[in-house]
Amino acid sequence: MINQAIVIFGGSGDLTKRKLMPALYNLFNKGVINANSKIIATGRTKMSTQDYRLFFGDMDDQFLTIVEYLVLDPHNERDYIILKSRLESTGCSNYLYYLATPPSLYNVIPQNLKKVELNIEPNEIKECAAQRRIVIEKPFGYDLKSAEKMNRDLKTVFSEDQIYRIDHYLGKETVQNILALRFANSIFEPIWNRHHIDRVEITAVENMGIEDRGGFYDGVGALRDMVQNHLVQLMALVAMEPPVKFAQKEFRDEVVKVYNSLKPLSAQEIDSRVIRGQYIESMINRSKVLGYRDEKGVKKDSETETFVAIKLNISNWRWEGVPFYIRTGKRMPTKVTEIVIHFKKSPHKLFSSLASVPEQNVLIIRIQPNEGIVLKFDAKVPGKGFNVSQVPMEFTYDKLAQNGIEDAYSKLIQDAIVADSTLFTRSDAVEASWNFFDPIIAHWNSGKAPLYGYPAGSWGPLSADSIIEGDISFTNPCKNLTNTNIYCEL
Amino acid sequence: MINQAIVIFGGSGDLTKRKLMPALYNLFNKGVINANSKIIATGRTKMSTQDYRLFFGDMDDQFLTIVEYLVLDPHNERDYIILKSRLESTGCSNYLYYLATPPSLYNVIPQNLKKVELNIEPNEIKECAAQRRIVIEKPFGYDLKSAEKMNRDLKTVFSEDQIYRIDHYLGKETVQNILALRFANSIFEPIWNRHHIDRVEITAVENMGIEDRGGFYDGVGALRDMVQNHLVQLMALVAMEPPVKFAQKEFRDEVVKVYNSLKPLSAQEIDSRVIRGQYIESMINRSKVLGYRDEKGVKKDSETETFVAIKLNISNWRWEGVPFYIRTGKRMPTKVTEIVIHFKKSPHKLFSSLASVPEQNVLIIRIQPNEGIVLKFDAKVPGKGFNVSQVPMEFTYDKLAQNGIEDAYSKLIQDAIVADSTLFTRSDAVEASWNFFDPIIAHWNSGKAPLYGYPAGSWGPLSADSIIEGDISFTNPCKNLTNTNIYCEL
Repeated sequence: MINQAIVIFGGSGDLTKRKLMPALYNLFNKGVINANSKIIATGRTKMSTQDYRLFFGDMDDQFLTIVEYLVLDPHNERDYIILKSRLESTGCSNYLYYLATPPSLYNVIPQNLKKVELNIEPNEIKECAAQRRIVIEKPFGYDLKSAEKMNRDLKTVFSEDQIYRIDHYLGKETVQNILALRFANSIFEPIWNRHHIDRVEITAVENMGIEDRGGFYDGVGALRDMVQNHLVQLMALVAMEPPVKFAQKEFRDEVVKVYNSLKPLSAQEIDSRVIRGQYIESMINRSKVLGYRDEKGVKKDSETETFVAIKLNISNWRWEGVPFYIRTGKRMPTKVTEIVIHFKKSPHKLFSSLASVPEQNVLIIRIQPNEGIVLKFDAKVPGKGFNVSQVPMEFTYDKLAQNGIEDAYSKLIQDAIVADSTLFTRSDAVEASWNFFDPIIAHWNSGKAPLYGYPAGSWGPLSADSIIEGDISFTNPCKNLTNTNIYCEL
Repeated sequence: MINQAIVIFGGSGDLTKRKLMPALYNLFNKGVINANSKIIATGRTKMSTQDYRLFFGDMDDQFLTIVEYLVLDPHNERDYIILKSRLESTGCSNYLYYLATPPSLYNVIPQNLKKVELNIEPNEIKECAAQRRIVIEKPFGYDLKSAEKMNRDLKTVFSEDQIYRIDHYLGKETVQNILALRFANSIFEPIWNRHHIDRVEITAVENMGIEDRGGFYDGVGALRDMVQNHLVQLMALVAMEPPVKFAQKEFRDEVVKVYNSLKPLSAQEIDSRVIRGQYIESMINRSKVLGYRDEKGVKKDSETETFVAIKLNISNWRWEGVPFYIRTGKRMPTKVTEIVIHFKKSPHKLFSSLASVPEQNVLIIRIQPNEGIVLKFDAKVPGKGFNVSQVPMEFTYDKLAQNGIEDAYSKLIQDAIVADSTLFTRSDAVEASWNFFDPIIAHWNSGKAPLYGYPAGSWGPLSADSIIEGDISFTNPCKNLTNTNIYCEL
């Protein structure tokens, strides 16, 4: 069996400490990586391996033995020579480069790896046939042009199938379960289309503000941070045609098809279908909460949106006429991510002449917290006449997860190690998504689009509901699921 | 407001004491009948009203004030004159005659009512415009011929819309909820047909034997007692086309259409599609349980079936090719009534190359006990790869029933009082059902059909499973729903 070496760029950074090392530790305990593996954390910070290991005092020594630290300046070509010699000491190994760095290094590091030939897979040339893969965190560009450049640059060093663009949303079990729900069951697919679905809502909100990430967040904003990647990915899972099989090419082809089917928006449509907001000072639980522009690292006249609500249409046979509503924001009343499928009303009100009118069926896929599925359906209320009332049928995902639900990073790093790129974002998907969102960003940058304020702790600008067709509002995830175990906390 | 008089024939019988009087008491407390109403319980037994009221000592005096007892011999015409004078003392009232008597009196009593004109509705003739209705308990005949005669005889006295044939199954909230489930929701109807449903199972079993009803039961049997009426009624609710509206004519028209669509069985088909059984002596919980032929009131060579399993086909556009399996029996392992809809397998195994194969979706409608709905669907098992596992999503009906689920008799007597015959069996439905079952009874009576023994406390004859297409068995309602609140007790 071939060994595995993992090189982390940004080894002393926050992501590495909070997510990557715990995930690798988990994979070590599961036997996915073993004592013959090597984890080389690199960073500019001068530090010994021993000191580095102290960050992870709660992890087993057996694991920490395979962890070493290498002082490396990403810009310094000579440091890569040292890295190379360290890697070669692992014998015949697959190398996985993990870029947990600012995006400004997304070209620098690959180019320097190339200079010492660390990108080359010694498959047929030498005795050791091994693989070289690179994992990159978002953002994958800031707009279409920069994304295209980034992809072009990367491909001068690695081929597409060596590049693993990580979207940790796809590592979530509950997100992958959307595929199981749709394609392992026979009962949903027949009604999963414009004939039976009225609208789809995708909500990912959090009650936190931007915390100490003001310097990063300002100038990025909710559209780039959440919508263009994570949330359109969720939309793609809900909307995609059944893939030929669940595999790298086939699955990702279908994702790209959904992005390419998004109906482009004119400037006029953007104003009526895309609402951006920014939280303003407010009182939450009797304490004052800062407005966005007063947060550390944020410009006083920042126009960065901390909230987006957007109405999308997918132009194809399955979805024509079905609006997809996406909503995300910071400083909302709670932290929740969920997909709500609203089915059409029943066509014939069999019981309405006698009593109450049935409500629409609703399927709720709760991504987090309290992961689960709820199907709201109408049942007869006991007693005289024929009154119906909507009741929830629920499944909580913890019932399937004896040992808890695995962390998204463990899942995805494991996939990268075994060279399964199915759940990673392909370059054409990145570009297809930007292709749709670019005009929105351009319109906002023109200064002509309104930016709505909303009080921290509220459900966003009041005008967000205006994008929804008919006299209805966005679903309140907390009110929506009373009397179930899929609640949210206020 | 017009008063209500209720005349019970068989007033000192078991049904009256156990079901009718408690139901009427309940309706009194709900205000459906009031202090101006009158309940006249009649019977051959000589007894004063005061003595009669003692049977119901736990009921409120306010209610018992409206209850009186009248000694009446159903065969004695003169007693009906007294009854008439008692009824006339109630002023202008609607009269409801409830026949809680042996079926041998189903012609005698109406004919005698007719002789004193108690069948005639004084609508336009006199100042009092009032209604006369008769409620009849099953059995509605013993075969097609006797059912036709019974209907003919009844109609010489009452018109069809005065006749209320009670099927207490239709009074059950959970049974009516089948209609709400199918027709108030938009998500089930599109998949409720031969394209998406593989098979339907209807099970109504009980752990009791025939108790002290041997004299009645022997010669009746499970087919007449349960299948020909209650269980085909459940089948009709599952299979019917959406009625124009939920009303007397429209709903019952659709029931009859289902019965008329049942594919007739040849003698040969009866042997392979209808399994009858009779329980034999066995040990349950270390105590000996009598075989059917050793029960009190049962002939030693009785061929009466205490178990039936039957495969039905409904010949129409919706159901062609979908088998409906009905199963009922006494001395089974538990008491449970439920409908199980097995959907077809998903057509394309997206995940099977990687791991486990999805199971069929199943919708379980539990009529009793632990009333509720369970939808079994496939979800992703957390962890590496793409394993799916079937999990239950459940709704327990008690969540909708704050004050408990109302007794079927209360519901149906109330309907009879307000002249809503929707949930009562129309004469053409009775005859259409007999028309299908008559050949089975005739074939059994020919002595050529096997009668299988099964040990008391078992799930019936082993050969019952032979009627199911493919290498599958009847669903075990107790094993089927582990980890839900819709369990059954063993």
